[in-house]
Amino acid sequence: MSDANKVVLAYSGGLDTSVILKWLQDTYQSEIVTFTADIGQGEELEPARAKAIKLGIKPENIYIDDLREEFVRDFVFPMFRANTVYEGEYLLGTSIARPLIAKRQIEIANQTGADAVSHGATGKGNDQVRFELGYYALKPGVKVIAPWREWDLLSREKLLAYAEKAGIPIEMKHKAGGAPYSMDANLLHISFEGRHLEDPKAEAEESMWRWTVAPEAAPDAPEYLDMEFEQGDLVAINGLRQKPHELLAKLNELGGKHGIGRLDLVENRYVGMKSRGCYETPGGTILLKAHRGIESITLDREVAHLKDNLMPRYAELIYNGYWWSPERRALQALIDNTQQYVNGWVRVKLYKGGVSVVARDSKDTLFDQTIATFDDDGGAYNQKDAEGFIKLNALRMRIASHKRG
Amino acid sequence: MSDANKVVLAYSGGLDTSVILKWLQDTYQSEIVTFTADIGQGEELEPARAKAIKLGIKPENIYIDDLREEFVRDFVFPMFRANTVYEGEYLLGTSIARPLIAKRQIEIANQTGADAVSHGATGKGNDQVRFELGYYALKPGVKVIAPWREWDLLSREKLLAYAEKAGIPIEMKHKAGGAPYSMDANLLHISFEGRHLEDPKAEAEESMWRWTVAPEAAPDAPEYLDMEFEQGDLVAINGLRQKPHELLAKLNELGGKHGIGRLDLVENRYVGMKSRGCYETPGGTILLKAHRGIESITLDREVAHLKDNLMPRYAELIYNGYWWSPERRALQALIDNTQQYVNGWVRVKLYKGGVSVVARDSKDTLFDQTIATFDDDGGAYNQKDAEGFIKLNALRMRIASHKRG
Amino acid sequence: MSDANKVVLAYSGGLDTSVILKWLQDTYQSEIVTFTADIGQGEELEPARAKAIKLGIKPENIYIDDLREEFVRDFVFPMFRANTVYEGEYLLGTSIARPLIAKRQIEIANQTGADAVSHGATGKGNDQVRFELGYYALKPGVKVIAPWREWDLLSREKLLAYAEKAGIPIEMKHKAGGAPYSMDANLLHISFEGRHLEDPKAEAEESMWRWTVAPEAAPDAPEYLDMEFEQGDLVAINGLRQKPHELLAKLNELGGKHGIGRLDLVENRYVGMKSRGCYETPGGTILLKAHRGIESITLDREVAHLKDNLMPRYAELIYNGYWWSPERRALQALIDNTQQYVNGWVRVKLYKGGVSVVARDSKDTLFDQTIATFDDDGGAYNQKDAEGFIKLNALRMRIASHKRG
Amino acid sequence: MSDANKVVLAYSGGLDTSVILKWLQDTYQSEIVTFTADIGQGEELEPARAKAIKLGIKPENIYIDDLREEFVRDFVFPMFRANTVYEGEYLLGTSIARPLIAKRQIEIANQTGADAVSHGATGKGNDQVRFELGYYALKPGVKVIAPWREWDLLSREKLLAYAEKAGIPIEMKHKAGGAPYSMDANLLHISFEGRHLEDPKAEAEESMWRWTVAPEAAPDAPEYLDMEFEQGDLVAINGLRQKPHELLAKLNELGGKHGIGRLDLVENRYVGMKSRGCYETPGGTILLKAHRGIESITLDREVAHLKDNLMPRYAELIYNGYWWSPERRALQALIDNTQQYVNGWVRVKLYKGGVSVVARDSKDTLFDQTIATFDDDGGAYNQKDAEGFIKLNALRMRIASHKRG
Repeated sequence: MSDANKVVLAYSGGLDTSVILKWLQDTYQSEIVTFTADIGQGEELEPARAKAIKLGIKPENIYIDDLREEFVRDFVFPMFRANTVYEGEYLLGTSIARPLIAKRQIEIANQTGADAVSHGATGKGNDQVRFELGYYALKPGVKVIAPWREWDLLSREKLLAYAEKAGIPIEMKHKAGGAPYSMDANLLHISFEGRHLEDPKAEAEESMWRWTVAPEAAPDAPEYLDMEFEQGDLVAINGLRQKPHELLAKLNELGGKHGIGRLDLVENRYVGMKSRGCYETPGGTILLKAHRGIESITLDREVAHLKDNLMPRYAELIYNGYWWSPERRALQALIDNTQQYVNGWVRVKLYKGGVSVVARDSKDTLFDQTIATFDDDGGAYNQKDAEGFIKLNALRMRIASHKRG
Repeated sequence: MSDANKVVLAYSGGLDTSVILKWLQDTYQSEIVTFTADIGQGEELEPARAKAIKLGIKPENIYIDDLREEFVRDFVFPMFRANTVYEGEYLLGTSIARPLIAKRQIEIANQTGADAVSHGATGKGNDQVRFELGYYALKPGVKVIAPWREWDLLSREKLLAYAEKAGIPIEMKHKAGGAPYSMDANLLHISFEGRHLEDPKAEAEESMWRWTVAPEAAPDAPEYLDMEFEQGDLVAINGLRQKPHELLAKLNELGGKHGIGRLDLVENRYVGMKSRGCYETPGGTILLKAHRGIESITLDREVAHLKDNLMPRYAELIYNGYWWSPERRALQALIDNTQQYVNGWVRVKLYKGGVSVVARDSKDTLFDQTIATFDDDGGAYNQKDAEGFIKLNALRMRIASHKRG
Repeated sequence: MSDANKVVLAYSGGLDTSVILKWLQDTYQSEIVTFTADIGQGEELEPARAKAIKLGIKPENIYIDDLREEFVRDFVFPMFRANTVYEGEYLLGTSIARPLIAKRQIEIANQTGADAVSHGATGKGNDQVRFELGYYALKPGVKVIAPWREWDLLSREKLLAYAEKAGIPIEMKHKAGGAPYSMDANLLHISFEGRHLEDPKAEAEESMWRWTVAPEAAPDAPEYLDMEFEQGDLVAINGLRQKPHELLAKLNELGGKHGIGRLDLVENRYVGMKSRGCYETPGGTILLKAHRGIESITLDREVAHLKDNLMPRYAELIYNGYWWSPERRALQALIDNTQQYVNGWVRVKLYKGGVSVVARDSKDTLFDQTIATFDDDGGAYNQKDAEGFIKLNALRMRIASHKRG
Repeated sequence: MSDANKVVLAYSGGLDTSVILKWLQDTYQSEIVTFTADIGQGEELEPARAKAIKLGIKPENIYIDDLREEFVRDFVFPMFRANTVYEGEYLLGTSIARPLIAKRQIEIANQTGADAVSHGATGKGNDQVRFELGYYALKPGVKVIAPWREWDLLSREKLLAYAEKAGIPIEMKHKAGGAPYSMDANLLHISFEGRHLEDPKAEAEESMWRWTVAPEAAPDAPEYLDMEFEQGDLVAINGLRQKPHELLAKLNELGGKHGIGRLDLVENRYVGMKSRGCYETPGGTILLKAHRGIESITLDREVAHLKDNLMPRYAELIYNGYWWSPERRALQALIDNTQQYVNGWVRVKLYKGGVSVVARDSKDTLFDQTIATFDDDGGAYNQKDAEGFIKLNALRMRIASHKRG
């Protein structure tokens, strides 16, 4: 079992991917390249380097990259241009990070002459699909190793035993018994699965949540934000222009403080099963509302409806792992085309878990007060036009009703 | 100007429709039939009868109907089966009431031998379209009189002068100057337009809101509700089975108490302009969340996605006034077909303007813990299947990448 | 390798499925039940019985069913109600037969207490998916055996050697060298794949086609047909009412005579590759045109457009094998709902490979000559209504143009 | 009745628009600018100049433009990139010419300082909408004069009387009694409406058709064409590179010779009625087939399906007159994005009214013979992958079937 001479492993430095690292060495006798990315998960990355070295990885084979700016600029923001929501609720925090990791992993494979890539996602989830569709789309001949689908370390006990034998340090929390939540974090969200969440009729424990205070513990006074957009992307908060990832970090801080962006969901995985997940997406939740707010005055009606019609499909593509597909790119061309005039500002109110739009304006607004007014409009709009409009729109139904009774 | 011998007027008893009543008598010399419906707007209807009599309407020409049950059962609930939201935000509270009023008005026209119908909606709004598409679809030869498009009483002053001259009593509030909000209420919502809302960059005044307390003024303790569904419709709250309209009234009460369901929106009208509206939909906001919650465990993935794909179109149809169209009926056939197994209960938490789903269960659940578990599943799911699944889904992209570099 | 005590095999009586039969006995030591269906492929079925007996199948384990009526009534006609075409061209002749075979095979499994089913489709094609999705949807615990994915008889030579060893009679044509076309036939079509069709830049050989004469060889005089529809289904040809499958057989005869319904296509398979197929669908090609013809005068515009919008998705579901899925059923509910008034007759002209609609009428027609006329219509339609219709439809674009130049 | 100081009239030089010219002078006392375009209708344009001068138009107010190249390059070809068909049949020959005429008319209005535009379309048809939506989108403050909706010359007799009085020469054919067909021609098609076509159950007369011979009269030998595409657009026929409009003219000639592209249709107009039209689109019919043919080997499956899903909406936009809308432009961005690799050649066979694709090839083909082959593929495709693919695609249905029986 081989033909994987050199493997680029998506390596977090945690227990699972350390076991995978070892297992790849044992099983494939491959040279291992580790790749660790900062996408805003909020963990120190240098310990991953130390750990990799300890596990025998050559220094030149250790890649640690800060991808936060690219992540938000080229993945999160383009997705938010479409007001993307999966199954009416989920903001796709995990889904949108995977294509970037896959892309960078393939770049490293090309740089290092690796013929294989590997990841730590299980055989039941969506992430394996998202990683591997990315790998195959970007490097069609690559060998993909998904240890969770190959090995027999399927129970926690076996995994820990393997780690112990391999000399991988095991933190107290892992020994403390009870499977941990399966978590994933990046600048857009943190997610939780597993443990007692596997019972959809049980409420999530308050202690599980990490990024947001409980709405009950949020400040008693609301806070207002002014958010400025250019071509559909957030560019400033309260007048301060920052880079995309800095802005999202700021929104996370504010949203977290006000208990915004918690979600408890049973969703449909691409692999065919339902699963229950909990998510904290404080900044994204604010951003979505605000983006809809600025679009509400700057987008043409039919363009807005076209986007709403296509959004579920676009969300599905991202959820299922098709970021690098030609159909996602074609949809993106449409979406980006619509954002030209999505400029202006939106004022949102944050309070105890809620975010609401209370005001908005734009130099490119399509709101026309002289026409919309209830007062006399001086002839800007001819009310008599409505009669013909209605009559012709009704005509087909009148004919049908007349002919068929 | 005639051929309107008998006119059925949608009559609220308020100033505007009273002026219309008089104006119809003056202009068309028609016999007038008044129709006043209780759809949960929360106003006494008997004063409308007295006022109609005072304006010379024959007692047998006065129709006052309690349509609350029919409204919620046959219009609101079918709409919620589709998780219907217009432009990402609006729950269609006004839109969904119009088709029922149009239908009943036409029934009365048929009963009384009237050849015309009339309403008090202006020539700038959506409601004229919704009323008239209903009229024409149900009685193709009917004459429709829309006074706001015909008369010259376009300013507040002229209207009051006409009323005075006609002996129509004018309440203090009308004289007090300043145009009032344009409001519409029924069991699903209350809406506000006009006045300073015509400036989208100004926040709505707290004093405007009627049905909900401000989130800041809501109770400091959250409240939990258990909501039970059968075939997609709510049937009980906290174990108490009630009729649809009673359940919705209960949700309104609870939502209002907790500050739930306020919305401030710039929306796109069917007649081509943007307008700013504020809405309070306390019960509907809770119902939407809960319905999505019960569907999350009982609907097949592809069915759920198909519904999500069609929902914007369905919402647009209702918003634009096409409830009685054959395409709305065809979509309803699909939607209703999907609700067969949407049975079970959902627990929601209400707190300071927010509503969230925290638990759900169903005898018809498609959530399969033995498959979804992170623990050893005893072979219920073969992780190796994922490899072939991914490989074939990736195949077209691999071929393209291979051939085109 | 077992747990397949009794296997229901979709058995054609041909070489391949005979080898499969033998291979199943050898490999799984299973009792075999053969199932052979007449779906109009135009072959004698009794030889299949004789052959099965010769291969050791017990008489009570041999099922030979005439499914032609059910096939056309419950599968072909419902599909044609949607004007279903895959990728703009393909009439889904193979796709629509698979769900019926899967259903009947599972019924037989249930009757005979079989725990497994098997088919002769390869691992590269769509048919394996169509069969197996049907099996799993209808009998979730069934074991599926797909010999082409399991065995090592992947070349023609190995297959013939196995047959010879097993005493399976081999006809001359098989020995004559050169792979035959891969063909599939039923009442809707006959298809061809493989051989030199694998080169998409080479024209198909005239000798390949079976059901249709070349247009060049068709009669020099056109032939006219009157086709009568009720609720979207064909019920009579030239005044003769017949059963669905008899009507389709008649259309095949007429279409074949006039060279109608040949198609040469490169299509996208569900498993991810492109493949080139040639099809003869004489009756279906006529039926599609005629059904569109009757809908053109009896369907409401928006209903027709809704159907056109959903059709590609519906076609994809059938092509990919999801006939028994809940989403196909939901779409069918919509489609069937639209066919209530699709009644009337259509006259088509058949000539040298072409079919065209030349006339149509219906008691339920929505064509209104008094309104459509270019002559004076006596006021049935008020041309002035068009002004308001256009003005309001243009309003959003005027505002945008005015504001943005 | 005025505020139309200078009017740009879409002027054909025929009887109707000559009467309109005179009527505009009489009614509005406006200065008239005539605009006559060559979009391939196959008529001499210089007589229009002479006639305009005779009717008193100043030479500098006469615009005669050859728009054929722009028409095909910027309107017809972009539309064909989407395989655009309205209601399953109609190739939109009239619809696609109107936006160009509207655009040019507005350009002339801007150049000449005209404040109004006028056209000769009636108040019952689609063309008024197409013209006027274009006018309003491109020059929001323009005054639009639609004489057919304003005047009382609604019968043929009144029109002729007016012409006679105004000294407009009337050709014999107009006097000969009987309303003529309403025809429209350009490089893409010629259309016929009116007269006995108003009876949908009567076959069109053979003598009506102009551009195509009857299939029965076409050559007895088929003709083959090689058509070459670049980025989705036709660039050469039989190896000869020409400009778009020259290529389309060549296809019209060939299609006409072989009786290709006749269509007899009842279609749904945007103004709410059904109407019967006959069309000859010889070149477009060939082009559509060939474009689908080249896409079949060069487009990714999901991209092709996405296009098929959006096409009916795109066709509806063009049919209804929304070429200049932002939603059409957004869709075009998507469509154009997909055509990057749509390069290669297609061989079509023309014979007696039929056109069929018989071969195709491309340097960018996605057809992969090594994978598609029925022969041993040497491991290019692993048939075992299909098992996992099917199992996971079936999983949701298995769970449902298992749980709900």
